[in-house]
Amino acid sequence: VTTTEQQTDTRRGDSPMIWSGWGDPSERHAPPSSALRFLAREIGATGPPTPPVALDQVRVRDSHLAVGDRDALAAAVGTEHVSIERLPRILHAGGKSYPDLLRRRTGDALGAPDAVVRPADHDEVAAVLGLCAERRIAVVPFGGGTSVVGGVEPLRGGFESVISLDLSRMDRLVSVDRTSLTAVFQPGVRGRQADEQLAPHGLVLGHFPQSYEYASIGGYVATRSAGQASTGFGRIDDLVVGVRMATPAGDLHLEAGPASAAGPDLRALVLGSEGTLGVITAVSLRVRPLPAQQRYEAWIAPSFTAGAEVLRRLVQADAAPDVARLSDEDETRTAMAQQEGVKGVAAKVYPRLRGIRGGCVLVLGWEGTPRGVSRRRQEALEVLRDGGCVRLGRAAGESWRRSRFHGPYLRDELMDRGVLVETLETATTWSGLHDLHTAVRTALHDALEGRGAPPLVLCHVSHIYPTGASLYFTFLARAEPRTALEQWRVAKTAASEAITAQRATITHHHAVGTDHRQWLPGEVGAVGIEALRAVKERLDPVGILNPGKLLPDPSR
Amino acid sequence: VTTTEQQTDTRRGDSPMIWSGWGDPSERHAPPSSALRFLAREIGATGPPTPPVALDQVRVRDSHLAVGDRDALAAAVGTEHVSIERLPRILHAGGKSYPDLLRRRTGDALGAPDAVVRPADHDEVAAVLGLCAERRIAVVPFGGGTSVVGGVEPLRGGFESVISLDLSRMDRLVSVDRTSLTAVFQPGVRGRQADEQLAPHGLVLGHFPQSYEYASIGGYVATRSAGQASTGFGRIDDLVVGVRMATPAGDLHLEAGPASAAGPDLRALVLGSEGTLGVITAVSLRVRPLPAQQRYEAWIAPSFTAGAEVLRRLVQADAAPDVARLSDEDETRTAMAQQEGVKGVAAKVYPRLRGIRGGCVLVLGWEGTPRGVSRRRQEALEVLRDGGCVRLGRAAGESWRRSRFHGPYLRDELMDRGVLVETLETATTWSGLHDLHTAVRTALHDALEGRGAPPLVLCHVSHIYPTGASLYFTFLARAEPRTALEQWRVAKTAASEAITAQRATITHHHAVGTDHRQWLPGEVGAVGIEALRAVKERLDPVGILNPGKLLPDPSR
Repeated sequence: VTTTEQQTDTRRGDSPMIWSGWGDPSERHAPPSSALRFLAREIGATGPPTPPVALDQVRVRDSHLAVGDRDALAAAVGTEHVSIERLPRILHAGGKSYPDLLRRRTGDALGAPDAVVRPADHDEVAAVLGLCAERRIAVVPFGGGTSVVGGVEPLRGGFESVISLDLSRMDRLVSVDRTSLTAVFQPGVRGRQADEQLAPHGLVLGHFPQSYEYASIGGYVATRSAGQASTGFGRIDDLVVGVRMATPAGDLHLEAGPASAAGPDLRALVLGSEGTLGVITAVSLRVRPLPAQQRYEAWIAPSFTAGAEVLRRLVQADAAPDVARLSDEDETRTAMAQQEGVKGVAAKVYPRLRGIRGGCVLVLGWEGTPRGVSRRRQEALEVLRDGGCVRLGRAAGESWRRSRFHGPYLRDELMDRGVLVETLETATTWSGLHDLHTAVRTALHDALEGRGAPPLVLCHVSHIYPTGASLYFTFLARAEPRTALEQWRVAKTAASEAITAQRATITHHHAVGTDHRQWLPGEVGAVGIEALRAVKERLDPVGILNPGKLLPDPSR
Repeated sequence: VTTTEQQTDTRRGDSPMIWSGWGDPSERHAPPSSALRFLAREIGATGPPTPPVALDQVRVRDSHLAVGDRDALAAAVGTEHVSIERLPRILHAGGKSYPDLLRRRTGDALGAPDAVVRPADHDEVAAVLGLCAERRIAVVPFGGGTSVVGGVEPLRGGFESVISLDLSRMDRLVSVDRTSLTAVFQPGVRGRQADEQLAPHGLVLGHFPQSYEYASIGGYVATRSAGQASTGFGRIDDLVVGVRMATPAGDLHLEAGPASAAGPDLRALVLGSEGTLGVITAVSLRVRPLPAQQRYEAWIAPSFTAGAEVLRRLVQADAAPDVARLSDEDETRTAMAQQEGVKGVAAKVYPRLRGIRGGCVLVLGWEGTPRGVSRRRQEALEVLRDGGCVRLGRAAGESWRRSRFHGPYLRDELMDRGVLVETLETATTWSGLHDLHTAVRTALHDALEGRGAPPLVLCHVSHIYPTGASLYFTFLARAEPRTALEQWRVAKTAASEAITAQRATITHHHAVGTDHRQWLPGEVGAVGIEALRAVKERLDPVGILNPGKLLPDPSR
């Protein structure tokens, strides 16, 4: 190990991710000083700067993988695709959650996997699973590595060793059915890569989670992701038409049909299985023609409540835009302080905003044919105006769109400056939305103020459905210098308890991983857990697959 | 037992069903003689009349239910809700498939359940399941009793006795959330009842299977039903937001949330479980405002292929009507011969039909606000005209709508006249639709001609999706007088093998029951079957629930 080792791990045909944070560090920009001043006013003076340690200071244990195991894996996938070197292991030591980054930035990669194994295809995945079941090696499937809930943490689960099964070599668009508008992908294709591969066919997947540039198709499916345009295009659940999963018990291959009543839909067992039941090796997805027009604009709603009511009316009248995001008062205030663009526009339209105090920003986006966009937008305008909303214009909407994948970079900047910054999300019915918003805000304020670090809690409605909506919270506070992880845990627990008490879901699109598993039984009940456990025990009888994720530890 | 016993079994607040056929016999009308002549020309002379035997000729075994079991059940649900009399047992001897009716019409109700048990609520259902697991009594959940795939056949599954668990007392609308547009129903509410209960709230479920007047909400969910307007309103899969199911292992209660990423969606295990995992005791469903306008009309497409292409373009442009049915050439010919209305209209517009030979009828329906209907219809018209379709007008569309629940009555009339009449349905991608249509038609023709009974095979596209469509087949032939069941089985097997060879689904909305279970492994694979079996064994360890349905018998 030398100090000249590279900071990233180059992958085939896509950008590298830095070990200590998000994406490509050259994409990072320091937040404007006005935004930092605003933040300091809101959460009090931040602590001293807390940059990550140097890479050569990161602590990693020697690989526990037995030589015989390593040779067997090498025989299955090729020697060059089994890595026990320091850097690949550090890069697979976890995902990109706040606790993940806290640990790695302070030099702790002690939980790194014993090896990184990179299979080329379904058969190699199946062979690795067979070997690992036989040799009792835990396997953590690794797509883009973007989990923010501990989903790729290489826990051993009682086994001597654990490998990270990196799917980045499986990065091909396998086939396109232009007539049925479906495409089959290998699981390691990243979101942006998928759209790049579809573009020559005149098609797009149109699934835009904030992790779009790095998250993989397999990860989308394994975690039931939602994209920023899922209000219009559907969650990944709605886009998956077929899937193939290698399991220790054999191959689960579900054909790409439009609909069926042939028993329970087993695709739903794969969706959200988070690598605990098998490894997704192919996904058939709905795709759509490349939109000829994309129109994004911002509006101001009189209040969060009034804005939510407008969104409800829009979606229940089948007139929702493809993207619909409504910030609450605190998020709006923060956005205004942060973004010169929005502030400038807001100032310009200020005369129109008279009578609206504490207004809330609404970002709306339409994609499709020019006629379709125009027609759908006209339908929405009536509801918006009827609900007392005022148009800010396209500049602010386009500004949001340009920066929509930047959030995780900003987090790195803030963490460098001693700021706790975390997001969490949930969903409930329209009739329960207000109480949920209040309950989670209150829980986060109480928990963090109780530790002397008053937070800034921001929230927006991120996805709307006929029966309800999601709420996406961001909270920031002064990080406790030595007890940041504990501080995070207290806040996270308080929010999760509040969500559960409101009978809302513990996660709308981040998945369960390690961070939410203790709340899963409250949501699906003991019988629900037993049903999942039964499937797990049948498909993965040795229990090698992604230990410690999704399901709580058996109490028996 | 006397010959004066009533022919039906009166239920609370809804129509009775006759034991030997469909619905209320007073709703039956003899087919027009022109239609019968057409049929005779197509399939050759029919056999001698084959009316059902008299009710007092129906053979039923004595109830096997032990006195202790009966007393225990009576203690759980009340003495008056445990029936071991002849008529209720005959009425629960099976569903309404062609083989079911063949057997009962010839006086065979030897498979009738040993008792009919009618619980009042969730707790009584749970108590009955507990008792039956302890006492080793098979339980067949029975909603509307409309299964056409053997789903409510009271098989014993190796147990001494079997009860039919009739859910008709659980017929209430429990609650309505007008804001979130959801409603909670008990499982025994029939389709039409549900809409009647919602109407005072200005709401409608809008789920219209052909069995709408008798099928129950619980049955919809257990079988993953589709309604005639599901192209627009969604399958029942899309409408279920929450569900409660009593199982021998306890209560599975999934809250009504709009969306979640909290592990696999367990609602999908309940949907399509066909009573094998538990008994559905409450369902929360999306509802919609009562439509102010309903517009149905018929068109003629140049051919089945051209019509299917028009439907594909409509749905992929998000411009599909709520109802979209395209008959193939033979079904169109048959409809013209049967329905004076259609024929009259067709004659009137004949000049416009010049150049179209072998055209295909397309029934389209829009429901909603007048403006929405008008706007959506305008969008569709362009695609229809561009595809060479010619408008027949509203009369033919309304004629279809008026008669859309009459099919099963017509089947009784035809069975009286010695005609084999059966339906089956499947779905596949748009790119596979033509080959599937040809393969199933050919298989049915070959199988029945091979037995000397050339069939009339009709088909329509019944539901359309962005990635594909369903095909609904009706076939008619001269029934073999003594071997009608075997004749049916040969035809059914041939069609099912053809569907499987095309990698299409064995059922789009009829479910699996007894009739399709041998083809389920071909569709979901051995690992899929094992996953289902694992859940079954965990939730119903004694195996009392609906034996012989859905899952094939274990080979081990």
